[in-house]
Amino acid sequence: MKHQVNYTMLCDFYELTMANGYLRTGLGDRICYFDLFFRSVPDGGGFAIAAGLESVVNYIKGLSFDEEDLEFLRGKGCFSPEFLDYLRTFRFTGDIWAVPEGTPVFPGEPLLIVRASAIQAQFIETFLLLSVNHQSLIATKSNRIVRAAQGRPVAEFGSRRAQGAAGALMGARASCIAGCSATACTMADLYYGCAATGTMAHSWVQMFDDEYTAFKTYCELYPNNATLLVDTYNVLKSGVPNAIRAFKEVLLPQGITKCAIRLDSGDLTYLSKKARKMLDEAGLTECKIVASNSLDEYLIRDLLQQGAQLDAFGVGERLITSKSTPVFGGVYKLVAVEDENGVVQPKIKISENPEKVTVPHFKKVYRLYDNETGKAFVDVLCVYDEEIDDSKDLELFDPRYNWKRKTFTNFHSRSLLEPIFRQGKLVYQSPAIKDIQTYCAGQIDLLWDEVKRFENPHAYYVDLSPKLWQIRQDLLHQKRF
Amino acid sequence: MKHQVNYTMLCDFYELTMANGYLRTGLGDRICYFDLFFRSVPDGGGFAIAAGLESVVNYIKGLSFDEEDLEFLRGKGCFSPEFLDYLRTFRFTGDIWAVPEGTPVFPGEPLLIVRASAIQAQFIETFLLLSVNHQSLIATKSNRIVRAAQGRPVAEFGSRRAQGAAGALMGARASCIAGCSATACTMADLYYGCAATGTMAHSWVQMFDDEYTAFKTYCELYPNNATLLVDTYNVLKSGVPNAIRAFKEVLLPQGITKCAIRLDSGDLTYLSKKARKMLDEAGLTECKIVASNSLDEYLIRDLLQQGAQLDAFGVGERLITSKSTPVFGGVYKLVAVEDENGVVQPKIKISENPEKVTVPHFKKVYRLYDNETGKAFVDVLCVYDEEIDDSKDLELFDPRYNWKRKTFTNFHSRSLLEPIFRQGKLVYQSPAIKDIQTYCAGQIDLLWDEVKRFENPHAYYVDLSPKLWQIRQDLLHQKRF
Repeated sequence: MKHQVNYTMLCDFYELTMANGYLRTGLGDRICYFDLFFRSVPDGGGFAIAAGLESVVNYIKGLSFDEEDLEFLRGKGCFSPEFLDYLRTFRFTGDIWAVPEGTPVFPGEPLLIVRASAIQAQFIETFLLLSVNHQSLIATKSNRIVRAAQGRPVAEFGSRRAQGAAGALMGARASCIAGCSATACTMADLYYGCAATGTMAHSWVQMFDDEYTAFKTYCELYPNNATLLVDTYNVLKSGVPNAIRAFKEVLLPQGITKCAIRLDSGDLTYLSKKARKMLDEAGLTECKIVASNSLDEYLIRDLLQQGAQLDAFGVGERLITSKSTPVFGGVYKLVAVEDENGVVQPKIKISENPEKVTVPHFKKVYRLYDNETGKAFVDVLCVYDEEIDDSKDLELFDPRYNWKRKTFTNFHSRSLLEPIFRQGKLVYQSPAIKDIQTYCAGQIDLLWDEVKRFENPHAYYVDLSPKLWQIRQDLLHQKRF
Repeated sequence: MKHQVNYTMLCDFYELTMANGYLRTGLGDRICYFDLFFRSVPDGGGFAIAAGLESVVNYIKGLSFDEEDLEFLRGKGCFSPEFLDYLRTFRFTGDIWAVPEGTPVFPGEPLLIVRASAIQAQFIETFLLLSVNHQSLIATKSNRIVRAAQGRPVAEFGSRRAQGAAGALMGARASCIAGCSATACTMADLYYGCAATGTMAHSWVQMFDDEYTAFKTYCELYPNNATLLVDTYNVLKSGVPNAIRAFKEVLLPQGITKCAIRLDSGDLTYLSKKARKMLDEAGLTECKIVASNSLDEYLIRDLLQQGAQLDAFGVGERLITSKSTPVFGGVYKLVAVEDENGVVQPKIKISENPEKVTVPHFKKVYRLYDNETGKAFVDVLCVYDEEIDDSKDLELFDPRYNWKRKTFTNFHSRSLLEPIFRQGKLVYQSPAIKDIQTYCAGQIDLLWDEVKRFENPHAYYVDLSPKLWQIRQDLLHQKRF
């Protein structure tokens, strides 16, 4: 992307005070492992869609401080000269593993693992979290909306209500990953290949002496992409009749039967049924009806259930901010350190809130699929040196209720985390956006419908291997108060 | 700012299709007036805080298409060669007026007015809206949180949960405008002068063999800024006792009595009271207690009402996303055009939803202050050529219920909108962030307490001048169906 911003300084200040402290106390080079994971699915859904990895890659590649940054930090008066010197040549030289963008993911499993020196691993916390949190949030929400539309195209229209420029741009990309067919955001097409779309605002209609002239002019200009916004004055008395007249006078004589109207206010079920009838009676049976105006998965589901005659949706603020749940609570926690012999020592964080107690250790994540149905049925967190053998039965238990045991047979497994950086070197090539979209849809097809309900979905299992569970228990008992 | 991104292409695609259409139909140079306004205050509050103008200024200054942009647009196959040529030298040459950042604003009044050629005025819609919407949202939310803290410092801690990098950075700036005393976002300090702050994460504590060593080391490194995070293992049994020991062994011998602990989980009222007692009994009466963990104005109000012993707050996700109302619904509507004689012709947009009917015409906004109390009591929207004469009585009426009339005497008025661009030239100098913060607090002081309630505030009056009201009525009747 041109105009690439260097976000090195988009860090929490404590990452710098801690880094300075690690350097001073000789802990700076200690190899640490951090997990990036989340604790609950937005909107009470059954799964989230991972996104944000491409931003992470660009950030890591660009990590470096320039003289202006160092001068600013020197002015703060709390950093040692050695530390500022250290930052001058600061680069990321560690390892990162991550689940590919578009993967359905579940609470408690790492979406991304960092292995790096204490300073490096700690420093990148904020930007990694904000990228993954934001983009996974919007991908997850967009996918709910896309599923509610039941195959009808959904276009992302939210830039103007996004939380900042990156909210618009990266949000559009995330919505595309998750199945939106298009975006209003031109820049998301230029940079990320998300198809940009759009026709007219109310101001277009207002600029002409009358609505009919506005419509007719638009059809003459864009005969192959004429979507007329019919609610500037009155949908049924003015907008639809004028659209019909323009279509008949401009498009039909050219043999063009594909066209559309857009409803942006009023009762969309009522208006779409009436408009459909008017269009059909005028012979415009191929004219589509597009709806917009504060839509989300709930409203789209209700409209379709009521028989609204809608063929496509433009979704804005409720998608681009994930309005009903605007926060994706991903966290970034230390799970292990290497001792002086390079042995990985698991670390735990206890908390007054039990759900905030971490799962320690450097891990692998396996997803198990049933060989008969092909469906995914459990994700298993293992210690890094464990392997799952698909040819053998596997006994697992619920990590909270360990008397609930189950033996799995006839499955195949897939390791979810892919290497992204090895010793600071990028070893991953992000797929094209269309391929990520296809992958995402395919992976969701491998989930049971029960997991996909909007409300009260079946809780997909995320289990710990017996070995990992025991390590966690031991650490919990050591730290007990 | 270094790494300034050019956001010219962050436009809705329909702005380009309409622009192409205006050029083709000869309407491109027609002078239009657009109002940017909002319809309701987030969280049901009584007022919003305007922000985002600095981003608008930078965007307008940078507006231009490069060859890569033009090549991309050519590839879309729907733009005329004349239009692409036109874009090659495209600049903003119009006028913009706006209320200064930090001004309390109310539904229905323009925060920003654009006068420009149809193409220019339409083209900038998306970026203007997203800047003002996002930053006004965060400023408004932050100010509620700051007011709930009743004079205790509030630091913005939300970058990791922000909706994208600009969500973090510009959100931090907006929170600073609205009264936050600091931010965790280092970049917001570097670029905007919002004081960055922060001490340690749980990982700092986990990196050491025990909590006491972690605390002691931190106090040795930063004796003048030692805020110790006491909830990694157990607040009252481990965290606070270890903090007390570290403070006593490291700080007190140096004569340092200023220090702090931070609570980030558990029941903040209970823990803060217990911790306060332990600190006081240890003689650390100057040790502050800072709270974080999913705070917002409601929780802070409740905590303080219960006597929680909290001296400062770190507020993250609920501020940086305005979680309870994550959308600021600003819109950008055509309100007038100039005819061939340069006469301003008001334009109206009707809607199936009555609250979406616009207030037409090129306007001025006056805020009226009572001379006795100094308090603001009404904002008046006037036609651009009207003046309010402070020496005369003023009769106004409620625009929805025009039998509700009131005569105002003994007031002074202030025109809220300042010129920002004149014929494309920047004529405004944005104040320093500290000055905007001071201005914002001062302007809020001029509002009645009734308007500042979190729930069910008194509705501040935004009236139309009788002349403007009549023009609107006439247009409504002309367009009636």
